[in-house]
Amino acid sequence: MALIDDAARTYELDRRHVFHSWSAQAGLDPLVITRAAGSYVWDGEGNRLLDFSSQLVNTNIGHQYPDVVEAIVEQARRLTTIAPQHANDVRSEAARLIVERAPGDLDRVFFTNGGADANEHAVRMARLVTGRPKVLSRYRSYHGGTQTAINLTGDPRRFPNDAGNAGVVHFFGPYLYRSHFHARTEAEECERALAHLEQVIELEGPQTVAAVLLEAIPGTAGIMVPPPGYLAGVRELCDRYGIVLIIDEVMTGFGRTGAWFHSATEGVVPDLLTFAKGVNSGYVPLGGVLIGDRIAEHFAQRPYPGGLTYSGHPLACAAAVAAITVMDHDVVVENALGIGQEVIAPGLAQLAERHPSVGEVRGLGVFWAIELVTDRDTRAPVAPTGGGSPIMAEAVRTAKSLGLLPFTNSNRIHVVPPCTVSPQEAQEGLDILDKVLSRVDDLVDEANKG
Amino acid sequence: MALIDDAARTYELDRRHVFHSWSAQAGLDPLVITRAAGSYVWDGEGNRLLDFSSQLVNTNIGHQYPDVVEAIVEQARRLTTIAPQHANDVRSEAARLIVERAPGDLDRVFFTNGGADANEHAVRMARLVTGRPKVLSRYRSYHGGTQTAINLTGDPRRFPNDAGNAGVVHFFGPYLYRSHFHARTEAEECERALAHLEQVIELEGPQTVAAVLLEAIPGTAGIMVPPPGYLAGVRELCDRYGIVLIIDEVMTGFGRTGAWFHSATEGVVPDLLTFAKGVNSGYVPLGGVLIGDRIAEHFAQRPYPGGLTYSGHPLACAAAVAAITVMDHDVVVENALGIGQEVIAPGLAQLAERHPSVGEVRGLGVFWAIELVTDRDTRAPVAPTGGGSPIMAEAVRTAKSLGLLPFTNSNRIHVVPPCTVSPQEAQEGLDILDKVLSRVDDLVDEANKG
Repeated sequence: MALIDDAARTYELDRRHVFHSWSAQAGLDPLVITRAAGSYVWDGEGNRLLDFSSQLVNTNIGHQYPDVVEAIVEQARRLTTIAPQHANDVRSEAARLIVERAPGDLDRVFFTNGGADANEHAVRMARLVTGRPKVLSRYRSYHGGTQTAINLTGDPRRFPNDAGNAGVVHFFGPYLYRSHFHARTEAEECERALAHLEQVIELEGPQTVAAVLLEAIPGTAGIMVPPPGYLAGVRELCDRYGIVLIIDEVMTGFGRTGAWFHSATEGVVPDLLTFAKGVNSGYVPLGGVLIGDRIAEHFAQRPYPGGLTYSGHPLACAAAVAAITVMDHDVVVENALGIGQEVIAPGLAQLAERHPSVGEVRGLGVFWAIELVTDRDTRAPVAPTGGGSPIMAEAVRTAKSLGLLPFTNSNRIHVVPPCTVSPQEAQEGLDILDKVLSRVDDLVDEANKG
Repeated sequence: MALIDDAARTYELDRRHVFHSWSAQAGLDPLVITRAAGSYVWDGEGNRLLDFSSQLVNTNIGHQYPDVVEAIVEQARRLTTIAPQHANDVRSEAARLIVERAPGDLDRVFFTNGGADANEHAVRMARLVTGRPKVLSRYRSYHGGTQTAINLTGDPRRFPNDAGNAGVVHFFGPYLYRSHFHARTEAEECERALAHLEQVIELEGPQTVAAVLLEAIPGTAGIMVPPPGYLAGVRELCDRYGIVLIIDEVMTGFGRTGAWFHSATEGVVPDLLTFAKGVNSGYVPLGGVLIGDRIAEHFAQRPYPGGLTYSGHPLACAAAVAAITVMDHDVVVENALGIGQEVIAPGLAQLAERHPSVGEVRGLGVFWAIELVTDRDTRAPVAPTGGGSPIMAEAVRTAKSLGLLPFTNSNRIHVVPPCTVSPQEAQEGLDILDKVLSRVDDLVDEANKG
């Protein structure tokens, strides 16, 4: 288990000097990653791991896609950085390519560094346009780590950051497997979730609600694909009450669901759409807000009171131009859709059949969740929301030992390989998950007996 | 005045699709920048402009420094992105190099995408460590564009974003030219500003104050170099009341003032120090929080509830490793100090003597402000705080027409060339400013007569 020399130094300096996200620092034992290509990464011991995490669900084109790497190389040699008040060719072109793929009147882009600040700025725009203070967002959601973004978030990471003063009210979204609405069908869940949201709006006071913000499909919170008609229903409610609809496509956008934007496949045009991650697969930090006419008109004559030094960063925009271009040429979005339909959906259905610890599988494209339970009837999770458990820790350990880098959260394993994953690689991952789930079955059995 | 073909398309797409920071969108007329090298940029008409803005005071090593560009190229081909939970060689090495240059026990780095999120996270750490809600920050300051960061900010861009619920209380800092404390000397200003801050702490209730946050030298707000002893005095007050001291070195850090960190030259070690910009000259978006023992110990066993997808981004960290290395080898920090002492200080003193519209010049290194006034006795500014005026607009227009890209704010022209600027280039810029100030003198004369 010896780390190679450089990896040993990387590890030692990391433990001494790098402060990690979302963690107690003393107990960390990070994996050293030394190399990555396509669907694989290599650790400090030289082991190859199939990346079924896409890191943080951002490397939609996989690792080190050659054309995109070379576009970064070329732009680095041409012009790395220019301040946001100026105009620059790759920034203009990135905006054009993004807008071209966005639904409806989402014709302008405010570039940010990532998803968190995209959501911060979208909420600001909504508040200023409406003159209203509150934002409604979902329980079971993730919207970023800065102060407003983490308060919009509906998972326990919010709690230590919530002083009750963020102007955010959380509501329940559709999640049939653990229905808040006692629904038995997707249609019933949809109808009741919309009725719930309308009651929340009415009882909060529509004149106090600036925006409804929700992920097109909640991602880290569990990949609960909303039933058909739900997003359209939210759009109608927003229209009825003059509320700005913000759809967060940070994780769903740019191919992940087998579409450029999931909201568009549902026929919904939000007033503001936030993105990051897949726009350039995170090769260079980039995020942004797509802006529709209602918001743009407000800020035509009034200054928008927000900004950042790296807005529209040329190197990041060049990576976006290249990523979008190769996704077009190499039919990456279609690949994600096809892999989902032809490999992952049937593969996960088989795993669910074979493994009693699997409560539900759900998703589309390359965006799937496996819920692990100790009992299929009670649906008791193998770990609490936002927490870990020995069973989940052992699932991660087993996956890594078998050559798979997984993405896990609470009681779930997410199946989120790159959109460029091949059928063979997807099957390889499913085969490893088969073994991981056998181990989980055993542990659940033991726990239930013990 | 014809834009060349590509520049015309850049401009047209920008106006159609790019939403700009801090602006009403309809009236914008952005400069197209097509190329940059060293201390110069080129506009869409082929004009060369001396960059006395360093863009947004971030290109400390100038544009397209070859070794740093090649380090980005090499890292792009090696490994662009890895999630923050893993360990990676360039992330470890960047942390080591930054920590090595930081004062005292600031031995760990939490990497962010820029300065705004660095300040957001520093404030969160301070609140969690102390269990106290409030942060004290300066009037006349800038700390970033996200919701908490803009509320920490002490300039009018805060107003539209301030709902009175950010838990921020503003105090007055030392600024002898427009003394809030009726002081006549730097020593008096220092003593009275510290007495003021202590009274604010006492009357807000020390047990409610998590942090004092201030820029080592307020940047965009006016480059008011604090008198000797002020920062040390603030450190003492924080110690006395158990308050976390956060120093924002986003603009001052990494050479700008002729030092790696201005706080260190003042002999002050904050509990948290935020940085961005100069760490890699913004070639790839990067910021961070340097963390001392008090804060690190708190989060050794307790999870830190914050994070971001691109924390410790390898491409950004590789640019930081290269930028810090070339700044060492090519004595860039020393160059900034020398240019300040030998060229800019005497040059601006001469301009102040020659031009009645100059109220004060102040600064150090390559970090200077010229305050423009309509009357040296009343010190009436030629533009209001946070606003523009025809005189300032004409100053900018004149500078550009003479080949200088300036940085202006309110009634000030800031002299903030790269730290790599040569004596000849610095003198070239001062000679242009001489002409600009003659034009300002004339306009002030006219205005005073009219």
